[in-house]
Amino acid sequence: MSVTGTGPIAPDDLDTRSLLQSIRAAIAEGDVDLARLCANRMLEDDALALLEDLEPGELSRLFTFLGDEALAGLLARLDDRDAARILTRMTAAQAADILEEIDPDDATDIFAEVEQSNPDVAGTILFEMEPDEAAEIRELMAYAPDSAGGIMTPAFVAVFPDLRADETVVALRQVAEEAETINYVYVVDRDETLIGVLSLHSLVLSRPETPVSQLMFPDLFSVSVDVDQEVAARMLVERDLLALPVVDAEGKLAGIITADDVADILEEEVTEDIERLGGSQPLEVPYLRATPLLLFRKRIGWLMILFIASFFTVSIQEHFDSTLARFTVLAAFVPILIGTGGNVGSQTVSTIIRAMALDEVRPHHILRIVGKEALTGLALGLVMGGLMFGRAMLAEDGSETIALVVGLTVLALTIWAATVGAVLPIVLSKLKFDPAVVSAPFISSLVDSTGLLIYFTLAGYFLPI
Amino acid sequence: MSVTGTGPIAPDDLDTRSLLQSIRAAIAEGDVDLARLCANRMLEDDALALLEDLEPGELSRLFTFLGDEALAGLLARLDDRDAARILTRMTAAQAADILEEIDPDDATDIFAEVEQSNPDVAGTILFEMEPDEAAEIRELMAYAPDSAGGIMTPAFVAVFPDLRADETVVALRQVAEEAETINYVYVVDRDETLIGVLSLHSLVLSRPETPVSQLMFPDLFSVSVDVDQEVAARMLVERDLLALPVVDAEGKLAGIITADDVADILEEEVTEDIERLGGSQPLEVPYLRATPLLLFRKRIGWLMILFIASFFTVSIQEHFDSTLARFTVLAAFVPILIGTGGNVGSQTVSTIIRAMALDEVRPHHILRIVGKEALTGLALGLVMGGLMFGRAMLAEDGSETIALVVGLTVLALTIWAATVGAVLPIVLSKLKFDPAVVSAPFISSLVDSTGLLIYFTLAGYFLPI
Repeated sequence: MSVTGTGPIAPDDLDTRSLLQSIRAAIAEGDVDLARLCANRMLEDDALALLEDLEPGELSRLFTFLGDEALAGLLARLDDRDAARILTRMTAAQAADILEEIDPDDATDIFAEVEQSNPDVAGTILFEMEPDEAAEIRELMAYAPDSAGGIMTPAFVAVFPDLRADETVVALRQVAEEAETINYVYVVDRDETLIGVLSLHSLVLSRPETPVSQLMFPDLFSVSVDVDQEVAARMLVERDLLALPVVDAEGKLAGIITADDVADILEEEVTEDIERLGGSQPLEVPYLRATPLLLFRKRIGWLMILFIASFFTVSIQEHFDSTLARFTVLAAFVPILIGTGGNVGSQTVSTIIRAMALDEVRPHHILRIVGKEALTGLALGLVMGGLMFGRAMLAEDGSETIALVVGLTVLALTIWAATVGAVLPIVLSKLKFDPAVVSAPFISSLVDSTGLLIYFTLAGYFLPI
Repeated sequence: MSVTGTGPIAPDDLDTRSLLQSIRAAIAEGDVDLARLCANRMLEDDALALLEDLEPGELSRLFTFLGDEALAGLLARLDDRDAARILTRMTAAQAADILEEIDPDDATDIFAEVEQSNPDVAGTILFEMEPDEAAEIRELMAYAPDSAGGIMTPAFVAVFPDLRADETVVALRQVAEEAETINYVYVVDRDETLIGVLSLHSLVLSRPETPVSQLMFPDLFSVSVDVDQEVAARMLVERDLLALPVVDAEGKLAGIITADDVADILEEEVTEDIERLGGSQPLEVPYLRATPLLLFRKRIGWLMILFIASFFTVSIQEHFDSTLARFTVLAAFVPILIGTGGNVGSQTVSTIIRAMALDEVRPHHILRIVGKEALTGLALGLVMGGLMFGRAMLAEDGSETIALVVGLTVLALTIWAATVGAVLPIVLSKLKFDPAVVSAPFISSLVDSTGLLIYFTLAGYFLPI
């Protein structure tokens, strides 16, 4: 069993194992057709990780058999970090050839991983690359990885507005292989300032002599290089675009973000949201790659903060020690009371955090939300409080008064948990804090402490203490 | 304050309010330019919901001013249910004209909402539509809304393999307005069976006389009409496609799913995952549209199940009543112990559920995952258990033995919570149950009960009872 995720293939991966044997055999015997067949199987089965099990010498021979383009196709489907690890095990010249075949935005992401783990190798690879392509990577490396600049590709097509439709088609024919998409052709003036866009189909469907300036849409959406990648991705999705132009500080067209990258960005952001909501920091690597040490580091922070804050619950119970000593049955209801409060808080906070991420809920809606949640909490509390009252009547050492106290506590707690679970993330975001700190465990812990206070206060009021 | 979400605009939406006044004025005075200006503002500010505040008569006049195409553009940006509500307030003829202008897949979704709330009106609208377009909607209505058939559009372009490139361009010119995308042209044989695909750019960049059969890729991805929408969406994303063909049982091309719909599908699925993870059923409407009654219904089910299961915690504490009576300080630590267990469970389950949704984790990884999580739980438990031991030493009525018991309980609970939070969703999915029932509150409640048993068992072992 491997817990690091980088060890040998697990014994239950029988298919993957035999595939590895086949590919090794193909390499050893120089059987190019079998190597190609195996490469296709790897793509189909999503078993690309087994490239990592090949020795450097085997990888180099595979490169010779399959060529840089085929190998680039395989690596592009891998996680950036895994692709980087494989690249560093090949010769710098081979790695350079492969990176040249990958779209510059994706190549830069992989290169960034190589540089982080192995700066010397990264330098050599860059040196071995064609000057043009090395320059593109250098340029893209200058942007923050999670900004629009960091995810854009410079492989767009731009033309001047006085070009004719037929001339543009001829021009496209020359660059089509290099460009990441030719669905949109951008129009720039002599300063490279973005002034419009036209679609490939308007080009195809127009008369040959029409100038581009007549075909283009001048009102186009664009983002600045330093905008957050999630903002750019949402814009692309909401406007149903296939690509979004990115401009630099002077309005010059610097690159484009293509629709194929958007789903990855949104998935990454959603994964972070879910992990935060569960009460840990984002892992930032696929789960199977996360070592126990990494999992520990991402979880211990919040766990410790909430743990220390929860010491307060110990103090509260110590404070009400004499009440508990006289009415020991009260202690029996503590877990179910605070558990229910925590559950309602978790339900509410996950719904609200998601609604905020989708921009469905904004800070000025706060009053509507409080009203809605307080009412929902009231309804939940009436049902659950009634149930609780019934159960408490059956308890040994119980009494009607104690049943009333626990029933009322459930009612108060559901209203409180629903309200605070909805309001806290909104208030935090209004105060410019990150609402993501309000996780389900955060609300549960908060409700634990405050719930105990409510419980013992009600007990003090109704019981003869 | 409006809690239903369909009432009047909240007083803090000042901009929206003045926009509503302007549009009303434009309608009353027949000022077409102002109406157009307002429509643009509504699009920019995402304030389309205010269309619902217009009276039926006002909507009809707006239709006359702006035309069906502009109004279709506005409605297409709204939630399906809201768009349906507005349509039913117009005349059937106007509603039919508008639906004809919307892409058939989206028009069908809106029409389905009209039919659900108002079948008579739906029938009349269908009657008023052009026969071709009414037939398309009828056909699409036959598929389950969350299947590939339910989200596909029949507005694709298909040609026979013996057509020449230049003939195809001429054909495209005729259908370009109707088609949802002409980036891909599909190739079918005389039985309408899908046999290949070619991209618009291969068409543009090839010699005019080349037959389509030479330009097409024969190995193409497709899905069946009854495949789940999420499976289709993920396929499109993973293969970086702009559109995915959908075939019926006989292999005939029935429609295509376009990339612009994919982000919506994935967002919908993610929202459901997050709401389930928080312990409620998916709302299925935007949060602000959810009434307290709906919120109540979506939350009460799980809350009640977990509440009743938690009665077990009461019984456990009643069972250990004599222990608690002799060592009242034990009760003081119950909330922090079970709270910490719940937090670790929540951290783990959200990470695992997300990894499963991304297909990063599969059932056969279970041993690796158990090892990883048990080790992580051990590390977390050593740190937190140590802290707990220290705090318990400071408690009034505390003793070294009691501190040892609470410290060991933390250690056991973190290991247990991390392991069960990871294993349970995987085991459920292996048993063909929906792993989404394992929410953060579910794990917390499970850990509450089992944690108490561990706690009192350890206490019984170490303390003189």
